[in-house]
Amino acid sequence: MRAALIQMPVVHDKKANLQYACRAITQAAEHGIDLAVLPEMFCCPYAGKYFRAYGEPLGGMAQTTMADLAAKLGITLVAGSLPELEGDRVYNTSFVYGPDGAQLARHRKIHLFDIDVKGDQRFFESETLTAGDAITTFDAPFGRVGLCICFDFRFEELARLMALRGAQLLVVPAAFNMTTGPAHWELLFRQRAVDNQLFTLGVAPARDPQGEYVSYGNTIAVSPWGDVLARLGGQAGGLLVDLDLDTIPSIREQLPILSARRTDLYHISGGGQGPLEP
Amino acid sequence: MRAALIQMPVVHDKKANLQYACRAITQAAEHGIDLAVLPEMFCCPYAGKYFRAYGEPLGGMAQTTMADLAAKLGITLVAGSLPELEGDRVYNTSFVYGPDGAQLARHRKIHLFDIDVKGDQRFFESETLTAGDAITTFDAPFGRVGLCICFDFRFEELARLMALRGAQLLVVPAAFNMTTGPAHWELLFRQRAVDNQLFTLGVAPARDPQGEYVSYGNTIAVSPWGDVLARLGGQAGGLLVDLDLDTIPSIREQLPILSARRTDLYHISGGGQGPLEP
Repeated sequence: MRAALIQMPVVHDKKANLQYACRAITQAAEHGIDLAVLPEMFCCPYAGKYFRAYGEPLGGMAQTTMADLAAKLGITLVAGSLPELEGDRVYNTSFVYGPDGAQLARHRKIHLFDIDVKGDQRFFESETLTAGDAITTFDAPFGRVGLCICFDFRFEELARLMALRGAQLLVVPAAFNMTTGPAHWELLFRQRAVDNQLFTLGVAPARDPQGEYVSYGNTIAVSPWGDVLARLGGQAGGLLVDLDLDTIPSIREQLPILSARRTDLYHISGGGQGPLEP
Repeated sequence: MRAALIQMPVVHDKKANLQYACRAITQAAEHGIDLAVLPEMFCCPYAGKYFRAYGEPLGGMAQTTMADLAAKLGITLVAGSLPELEGDRVYNTSFVYGPDGAQLARHRKIHLFDIDVKGDQRFFESETLTAGDAITTFDAPFGRVGLCICFDFRFEELARLMALRGAQLLVVPAAFNMTTGPAHWELLFRQRAVDNQLFTLGVAPARDPQGEYVSYGNTIAVSPWGDVLARLGGQAGGLLVDLDLDTIPSIREQLPILSARRTDLYHISGGGQGPLEP
């Protein structure tokens, strides 16, 4: 299957962001893609003060725009994430649409990004956002996908549970910063891929050095063996990557990690739908 | 605390291996060390056909030699691993001695290394060895240590459980090969350190390109932020590394991973002694 990862600039004009996303995905689709992925907060500047103002309820403008685009192009579209309003709560939510435009999945970020690196990065999503409470996997036409958002991916249990539910691919709209990005971004996508013997895709906003939150960018695709298949730098752009999901059984057979787990000595369990052990 | 990591050549003469280990650790101890770590199978060539012949029961020669050395130098000594005989079984066992020479811990490798990379590496420990069945943490004078052997470290649940039991440092006698080493060694030690916000130490045999099993070497020490503090290449040698365990609480506060786990959504449990949650 072929995926397009869109590392787009995020500006203050929500409609302009939607137009950029539509144009970039439409261009990528000329190359025959199965999946397109947008960054975390792809149509809202990443700062707590904007989340509510840019937010929309279920069925809002950004969602219908993305659903229509998925249907028009006949692709699966992971619409990065956007602020979702429900009652007086705001979630950091990733909506997924299938080739018929129907909503395939919705993941609300379950680990809010509260970080306070002394003398450097400080960010508290929990001041404005509410955390989701479900682990998200879904079936696309090309295979089973695990979906989480940025800080979620820091928590190995989540990736493991998605793998045990049969995910062949973990898709992660994200926005690491200039402290955590250089230190941990590639490392994280590579090791989660190796640990769980699946593909990982991370898609970030382009870097704006003058922005209020400076995204590291470095949109990335990693194979189940931990090889970086493709990676961008900080600038806006896109990656077209071909993922051969059929290689997964062979990798898992040659290096038995998932199957050699000593479930008699440790056990991981988690909420949500689907079988826990493969 | 200061640790000495001994990347030693392993030859066919068991006594020569013990003498080398004693000499190297004694030299390192002149620099004032708290901990010394030897490689996996430090006194036995790493091949299935040697394990039983080089093996010894509880209290055997290699063990008493190492216990005496720990007492003489007043250090904690993780004696890599060696084939341990019990009845008709052979374990890949790491013995640990405290500064008084008493056995502090014993870890029997719980994940046997069975790998079959097509056209490349093939190794089946399970043809000759029996797997242990306990997760091992112990208290040394300088702090709490998690101990596992090589392939064990591939399984994230084990490292996580050791961290949740309070380990500040994961010590891993290991022997990756020339396929898995370049692909995964550094990545693994770095990401386990970041995921669990503790120090990781990996100690391997020196590389012998003519050996039956060619060790990657690359003995390594990594900080809780994922920085490589020190690393060797393939040749015999040693690393002296200073680990400031007091930095751990600050790292865990600035980047809350262990504390922000959504234990309402997923749960990991495991056998053995000690509290599971910190």
